[in-house]
Amino acid sequence: MLSMRAEIISVGTELLLGHIVNTNASFLSKRLASLGIDVYHHITVGDNPIRLADALNEALTRSGIIITTGGLGPTVDDITLRTIGSAMSRAMVFEKKIAKYIKLYFKKSNIRKIPKDALRQAYVPRGALWFENKVGTAPAILIPHGKKIIVSLPGPPRELVPLFEKSIIPYLRKKGFAGNWIIKTRTIKISGFAEVDVNNAVKDLLSMGPYTTLGIYAHLGEAHLKITSKAKNEKTADREIKKVEAIIRKRLGNYVYGADNETLESVVGEMLTKKKLICAVAESCTGGLISNMFTNVSGSSKYFKMGIIAYSNTAKVELLGVPEEKIEKYGAVSKEVALSMAEGIKKVSGADISLATTGIAGPTGGTTKKPVGLVYIAAIGYKLKMVKKYRFSGNREEIKLQTSISALNLIRAVL
Amino acid sequence: MLSMRAEIISVGTELLLGHIVNTNASFLSKRLASLGIDVYHHITVGDNPIRLADALNEALTRSGIIITTGGLGPTVDDITLRTIGSAMSRAMVFEKKIAKYIKLYFKKSNIRKIPKDALRQAYVPRGALWFENKVGTAPAILIPHGKKIIVSLPGPPRELVPLFEKSIIPYLRKKGFAGNWIIKTRTIKISGFAEVDVNNAVKDLLSMGPYTTLGIYAHLGEAHLKITSKAKNEKTADREIKKVEAIIRKRLGNYVYGADNETLESVVGEMLTKKKLICAVAESCTGGLISNMFTNVSGSSKYFKMGIIAYSNTAKVELLGVPEEKIEKYGAVSKEVALSMAEGIKKVSGADISLATTGIAGPTGGTTKKPVGLVYIAAIGYKLKMVKKYRFSGNREEIKLQTSISALNLIRAVL
Repeated sequence: MLSMRAEIISVGTELLLGHIVNTNASFLSKRLASLGIDVYHHITVGDNPIRLADALNEALTRSGIIITTGGLGPTVDDITLRTIGSAMSRAMVFEKKIAKYIKLYFKKSNIRKIPKDALRQAYVPRGALWFENKVGTAPAILIPHGKKIIVSLPGPPRELVPLFEKSIIPYLRKKGFAGNWIIKTRTIKISGFAEVDVNNAVKDLLSMGPYTTLGIYAHLGEAHLKITSKAKNEKTADREIKKVEAIIRKRLGNYVYGADNETLESVVGEMLTKKKLICAVAESCTGGLISNMFTNVSGSSKYFKMGIIAYSNTAKVELLGVPEEKIEKYGAVSKEVALSMAEGIKKVSGADISLATTGIAGPTGGTTKKPVGLVYIAAIGYKLKMVKKYRFSGNREEIKLQTSISALNLIRAVL
Repeated sequence: MLSMRAEIISVGTELLLGHIVNTNASFLSKRLASLGIDVYHHITVGDNPIRLADALNEALTRSGIIITTGGLGPTVDDITLRTIGSAMSRAMVFEKKIAKYIKLYFKKSNIRKIPKDALRQAYVPRGALWFENKVGTAPAILIPHGKKIIVSLPGPPRELVPLFEKSIIPYLRKKGFAGNWIIKTRTIKISGFAEVDVNNAVKDLLSMGPYTTLGIYAHLGEAHLKITSKAKNEKTADREIKKVEAIIRKRLGNYVYGADNETLESVVGEMLTKKKLICAVAESCTGGLISNMFTNVSGSSKYFKMGIIAYSNTAKVELLGVPEEKIEKYGAVSKEVALSMAEGIKKVSGADISLATTGIAGPTGGTTKKPVGLVYIAAIGYKLKMVKKYRFSGNREEIKLQTSISALNLIRAVL
């Protein structure tokens, strides 16, 4: 059925100059897929009426749902609606209600003088439906055209996303544009296991299909397994996903730390909360990143007591009580100092569990014996006292991130 | 001249499903613009030979340089080269030298058994030039076609970028495909000034043109002004950019903190180094983010002595010596406690300059009197002792980031 196929036309010279990345096309594609609507083409053209009209006419020959993004601003460069109007032989008409909410928007934003051209955005092609933009001025436009529809969305993602979710999707569902199948996905997150090993563990599942598929996505310090199920309804999709998830969890065991929106820090936070444990961190090479990750979780003040970034040797001695002799004998980057830092922060904070990191984040400071990427992580408390040695590669920020993830994973594994 | 116009065709069903964002199109567009080559269309199609052939034939009617990305893998789903070959009536031929480097690649990667289909990637359309991929197996392909060329690049950005930079760009320059003008850009970075005020300060410059243009890009806590100059040569471009930059710097003065790759933390770091000052941080609501930003700069151990993340009240009292009475009387989020934290960390660390933050990052913990987003930042030392009150909006991470940027900007402004 033709009307089930959608096409996305992005309008904006800034896209063709590479000044911005087209995240709208991928967002819309993902959402359309989840509604069972196929997308066969993405087209990007500049702020040029002739090339936009060409793209529009071509799209109408092959797709039932045409979605344009961008070019809805108030300036003369913003050509989308005028071009659609003239391609479909519809006059532009002034919608008083749009003008009214635009004025209100400026008032609420404490802008007293409405810019001269702002009300241009109240003109829409005759017969168009429009949907109020709650976080900007340009409305979303929907033009029924025989059995097809043309949808125009503003370019800024923070305006496009809510308009699509709250206005366009309900329309598509109500009018029967959504497909007779749906797509669901679930992402299983793994840490502490090399990507190649994850790959080997699930190799046979990677060629499943055609309705349920598995993909591996490597991230710094973690791997994500994305299960996608295309099914007649949610129940079937959920059942298929559950089956695959069970196999993955059985094979990868405790290396699986969470799914979907869960992060390593949120999972560790939940574990600490559940066991009523307080944690504290002494960071050298991670320089505050572990504390920052911990405190990105709302409610972390319940279990994260404090962090000390002992970046200099004197800070390690004075704040954490690391014996100077240890630093002299073994060096600041050593398992002895890592352990001593973890002991120090545990004592200072009175926390149940403490973590400490010391290493060489680079790009300078490495030697043959202690190269860039050498890191020691120590954890003390709650049944454990351990220190592990790592050799990470990458740039400074990558080494910091891998260290922080490994540190969080270290306490996750024992909790 | 037709050959100066390029078109990018991205191939991959994963793009149409929204599983990945098309960063290749923006990367290539930006680089092509810098060579004076116009891009008027981006097209994305799935792994479908018919739709790819259609896109290819259409592109050949309007562009002189056609660049495809993706679909060069070793599986039957990878259709790009076969489709190009058949669209141009060229047989596929086996290139021994490609096979050789692919085998070598697997050997270097310690993979003993070469996957069955890997050598499919050694087949290219007859008459094609190819360029070795140093970080993967698929070569870049370039097919001269009359006065036009078709270039095929592998999809993974880490393979595409070096192949384009090191193999394709030199070819384009040598063969006269690069335009007879160049584009240069420079980004001026501003902090501590609202975007709307930046906009007002440079309003007249935003409508310059057509050869030198200015754009405003808002980021959390900062604004970037991007000067773009299109000119006959680098010298002219540099001169035009310098002119505009001088005007901006004159108008915005000390609000300009840097340009291009400079970050607030690198600029502050340089200032501290130059003045031989040591700095330390006491963080509550920012939870380690300021320390993390400081230590993202290589060499920061020279001027960043330590950070204390005093997330709990007891940590503020025990580690920073904040009087308990102050917390009781004014609350942990108050200018009195912020100042006392800054005094405490200065004393503990012996640093020349200290910074402290306390606030409510949300989403919970706010009250009518002290709402989410209320933040106090104190700075002590080197000619200053100050505390400032802020009201930020946004989610937890956004409030943390805005606080950290404001804190760095606070000490930048006085250094």
